Amino acid sequence: MKDLMIALQSGKTSLYEQIYLSIKRDIEDGKISFGEKLPSTRLLAANLNVSRFTVDLAYSQLVSEGYIQSRAGSGFFVCDLSNLYSGISGAKTSAEGEATGKAQKEAPPCSVRIDFSPFAVDSAQFPYNTWKKRNREVFDEITDILVAREAAGDHSLRETIANYLYHARGVHCTPEQILVGAGNEYLLLLLVQILGGGRSVVMENPTYLQAYHVLCRAGCQVRVGEMDEDGLCCGSLDRGPVDVVYVMPSHQFPVGAVMPFSRRQELLDWAKAAEGRYIIEDDHDSEFRYVGKPIPSLQSGDQDDRVIYFGTFSKSISPALRMSYMVLPRHLSERFYEQFDFYSSTVPTQQQLAVCRFMQSGDFERHLNRMRRVYKAKHDFLLKELKQRPWVKKVRGENAGLHLVVEVSCACTEEELLEAALQKGVRVYGMNSYRIGPVEQTEPVTLLLGFGGLSEKELSEGLAVLDGLLDAGS
Amino acid sequence: MKDLMIALQSGKTSLYEQIYLSIKRDIEDGKISFGEKLPSTRLLAANLNVSRFTVDLAYSQLVSEGYIQSRAGSGFFVCDLSNLYSGISGAKTSAEGEATGKAQKEAPPCSVRIDFSPFAVDSAQFPYNTWKKRNREVFDEITDILVAREAAGDHSLRETIANYLYHARGVHCTPEQILVGAGNEYLLLLLVQILGGGRSVVMENPTYLQAYHVLCRAGCQVRVGEMDEDGLCCGSLDRGPVDVVYVMPSHQFPVGAVMPFSRRQELLDWAKAAEGRYIIEDDHDSEFRYVGKPIPSLQSGDQDDRVIYFGTFSKSISPALRMSYMVLPRHLSERFYEQFDFYSSTVPTQQQLAVCRFMQSGDFERHLNRMRRVYKAKHDFLLKELKQRPWVKKVRGENAGLHLVVEVSCACTEEELLEAALQKGVRVYGMNSYRIGPVEQTEPVTLLLGFGGLSEKELSEGLAVLDGLLDAGS
Repeated sequence: MKDLMIALQSGKTSLYEQIYLSIKRDIEDGKISFGEKLPSTRLLAANLNVSRFTVDLAYSQLVSEGYIQSRAGSGFFVCDLSNLYSGISGAKTSAEGEATGKAQKEAPPCSVRIDFSPFAVDSAQFPYNTWKKRNREVFDEITDILVAREAAGDHSLRETIANYLYHARGVHCTPEQILVGAGNEYLLLLLVQILGGGRSVVMENPTYLQAYHVLCRAGCQVRVGEMDEDGLCCGSLDRGPVDVVYVMPSHQFPVGAVMPFSRRQELLDWAKAAEGRYIIEDDHDSEFRYVGKPIPSLQSGDQDDRVIYFGTFSKSISPALRMSYMVLPRHLSERFYEQFDFYSSTVPTQQQLAVCRFMQSGDFERHLNRMRRVYKAKHDFLLKELKQRPWVKKVRGENAGLHLVVEVSCACTEEELLEAALQKGVRVYGMNSYRIGPVEQTEPVTLLLGFGGLSEKELSEGLAVLDGLLDAGS
Repeated sequence: MKDLMIALQSGKTSLYEQIYLSIKRDIEDGKISFGEKLPSTRLLAANLNVSRFTVDLAYSQLVSEGYIQSRAGSGFFVCDLSNLYSGISGAKTSAEGEATGKAQKEAPPCSVRIDFSPFAVDSAQFPYNTWKKRNREVFDEITDILVAREAAGDHSLRETIANYLYHARGVHCTPEQILVGAGNEYLLLLLVQILGGGRSVVMENPTYLQAYHVLCRAGCQVRVGEMDEDGLCCGSLDRGPVDVVYVMPSHQFPVGAVMPFSRRQELLDWAKAAEGRYIIEDDHDSEFRYVGKPIPSLQSGDQDDRVIYFGTFSKSISPALRMSYMVLPRHLSERFYEQFDFYSSTVPTQQQLAVCRFMQSGDFERHLNRMRRVYKAKHDFLLKELKQRPWVKKVRGENAGLHLVVEVSCACTEEELLEAALQKGVRVYGMNSYRIGPVEQTEPVTLLLGFGGLSEKELSEGLAVLDGLLDAGS
C-alpha cells in the first residue's frame, strides 16, 4: 500500500479538495502508479487528523473522475491512466478552475476580523431561548407540521403579519393580499411574473443592487431615476414610459434619506394618473427608527391600489431566516390566486409556524423593543466616535437602520480604501458598490458602516484601523 | 353601545372575515348607524368565544376600509357612511370577490376525510425526536446560525449532498456544482435564467405540471414530446429546435415508467450532438424503490456535462421542508458563480444545518430504510387490494414511489368520478390533471392513488368509497 504525502493547509480550499488535488497530482505525475492500493479512508483520516467523511469525499471525487476505483472489500486502487482522458477531456482544467474560483468566491478571507456589513444583526442579543421555545411548541403542538402550506404562506401567519403591519406600519391589507416567500429576490421574481414581462422600472441610485440585478435578469427594462435631496424626482418619470417605480421611502438604502410627505403624494399621484402603474415600496428596516415618530408606510396613503409593499424579517429577526413578504394590491392578489398559485410556498412550514407564534406571543415586539435600544446604543456610540474623527466630512442616514453613511476625506479612491482596510482585516463597504451604471469621478469617497453585528469594542477597533489609513492619507 | 348579532359558522371563511362581513353588512344596511359605538374587542371576543386577536383583525379591516374609526381610549365608532365611497370606489366588490375566492381556493373542504395525494408523506412515522435533536444541536453548537449561507447553500451541506448523491444515485459532482434552493420551482426559475431566456423545452406528457407552468411563465417555449412505451422518443426531438428536454427517467411522474438503458443512451447522444443542448433529470422519488436494484441516475452516465440533475427532500423527508437541489454541469455552475450569485440563498440557515446533520449522522439513511419498508407495506397492501377489484383494469407504476396508477372501468368521465368521490369525502387524483394540452376523449379513466400519507385502514376506507361508485357505475 502506498504511503501518501499530503500537506494540508488551513483556510485555502476545503480539506477534501486539498486531499483530492494532492492525490490527483501524485497520480498524474506518476508518483503513484497504476494498480497501486491507496491507504484505507480510515487510516488516511487518522494520519491527516481529519474526519473519515472528508477522505471519503476526496476518494469519491477521484473515483468519479476515473483516477481510482473501488474494489469491493479490498479498497481503492489507482486506475490505468492511459484511458483516463478518453471520456472526460476538458474536465481537468475545468475542475481546477472551479477549485480556484471557489476559494476566491466562497471562502471568506480568514483574515476579516471586523465586518461592517450593513446587513448583519446582533447575534449576541438574539433571544435564542424564546426562539427555541417557539420551535419546540410547533413540534409538540401542531399535528400537520409535515404538510406544506398554501402557496401564499400559512393563513394564520398571514393574518398575524396583516395585523402587525396595520399597527406598526399603517399598512391596510387582508391576509389574502400577503405573499410570504423565501426572501425579497424570490418575491420580486414572482412579482415580475404577476405584473407581466417586459415592464419598465425606475429605481433610485444608489440603491439595493440585488433588486436591480433581479429585475434586469427577469426581463425588466430598468433605468435610473433623477434624484434630488428629497429622493426620486417625479417630474422625470414622465420623460419615458415607466410602469413601475422601486423606492424605499421610509429609509432609503443605502443613503438613508426619508422621503417627505409631499414627494410621497406626488409619487402616489403619478401612479394614479395612468393604468398599470405601480410603486414597489421596499420597507426593509423601518423597525429601527431611533428619533421621532415612526414614519407611516407609503402604502398607508395609497387609495388607489397602486403600492406593492415589501417587508422582511432579515433585519427584525435574522437574515438567516430567508423570509420576506409582499403585500399586493387586491386585483394583483386575485391575479396571483387565479394564475400563479401553482407555485409552492418557498418557506418551510416549521419556520412559518414558529415565526407566527413568535409574533402572536408578543416575543417579536419585545425583541424589537429590545433591539431598538441595543442598536440605538451602538448607533449613538458610532455616531459620537465618527464625529471626533478629522477624516469624517459628513455623516448621513442617521436616526434609523443598522448602518451609517460616512463621507470621508481620502487621498485614494473608494475601492483602494476598501482594499487597504481589508488588508488590515477590516471589511468596510463603499457607496460605489450600490450604484447602477458608471461611477462619476466627482463622487466623494463614501463608506457604509454597518453596526448591527459589531460590539462597541469591535466598532472602536475597526475605526482605529480606518484612523491609521485615513489620518495618514488625508 | 350597540349589541351585535353575529352568527359564526365553522369551516366557511375564517372567523375574522365572518365578523368583518357581518358588521360591514349591518353598517351598510343601517342596522348600526353613524356615531354608534361598537362593543370592545375584549367583550365581543368573549361573547363570540373567539380570540381577541380575531376581533382585532376584523375591526382593523373595518377601520382600514373606513367603516369604523378608533378614538383613542374610547373605542370604535361607526363612521359617516355618506363619504365612505369617496376614496375607495370599487374596493367593496373587490373585497367581497376576494373573500369568496379565498373560501373556494384556500380552505380545504372540511369534508375530505381521506386524501390519496401522491405528494403526501407518512406523518405518523416521521422521526420527530431525531429531527428535534438535530435542530437542537444546531442551536446549541453552531455559533453563526444567524448568518445567511452562500447563495448556493451551506458548503458542508453541499458536500454532504454530493457524497449522498454519489453513493445513492451514482451522481458525479463536486459541492460547487450543487445549488440548494426552496423547492424545484424556484430552482427551475433560476435555471432558466442561467441557461438564458427563450429556450425551447420538450416535456413528457403527462408530466409534473407545476414544472410545465413554471417553464412557460419563465418565458420558455414548451412543447410535448412524442412518447412510446419506453418514454420520450428521441427521434422526434430533431423535428424542431429543442434546447432542453425535461424527463424523469428513473420513475416518470405520474405514469411511473422507467426509461430503459438504450433510451437513456439515445437521449444522452441527442444532447451531445449539438452545442447548448441539456437534459433536465427530475429524480423526484428514486429513494423509494421496492423491487430490484436501484436504477442509477441518467447523470451518472453523462460524460459530456449535459445533464442537470434535480433532487428533492419533499418525499424523502417532507414536502413541508421546501428544500430541493440541482446539480449543474461544471460550466453552468461557473456561470452561476460569475453572474448569478447575487441571489441570496432561499433556505433558512437553521434548516440547512439541521438537514446536514440529519444526513451526516446516518439518521437520513436510517429514516429512508425504515420508510422504504413502511411504504413497501402500504404499496403491497394497496396493490393487493386493487387486484381484487373488478373495476380495476390495469395497475401501472408499481415497484417504486408513493402512488399507483390505476386504469378503471367507469361509465362516467374522470372528472365526474373525482367529483363523486369528493362528495363522499375521498379525494382521488386523475391522470388528466397532469396532461399538457387538450385531453383526448379516448383516454381511459385513470386514477393516481397516493398511499404515502394514508394508513391501511384509510386506504381500505377510501377503496370502499370507490367500490360504491365504480361497482355501480361499471
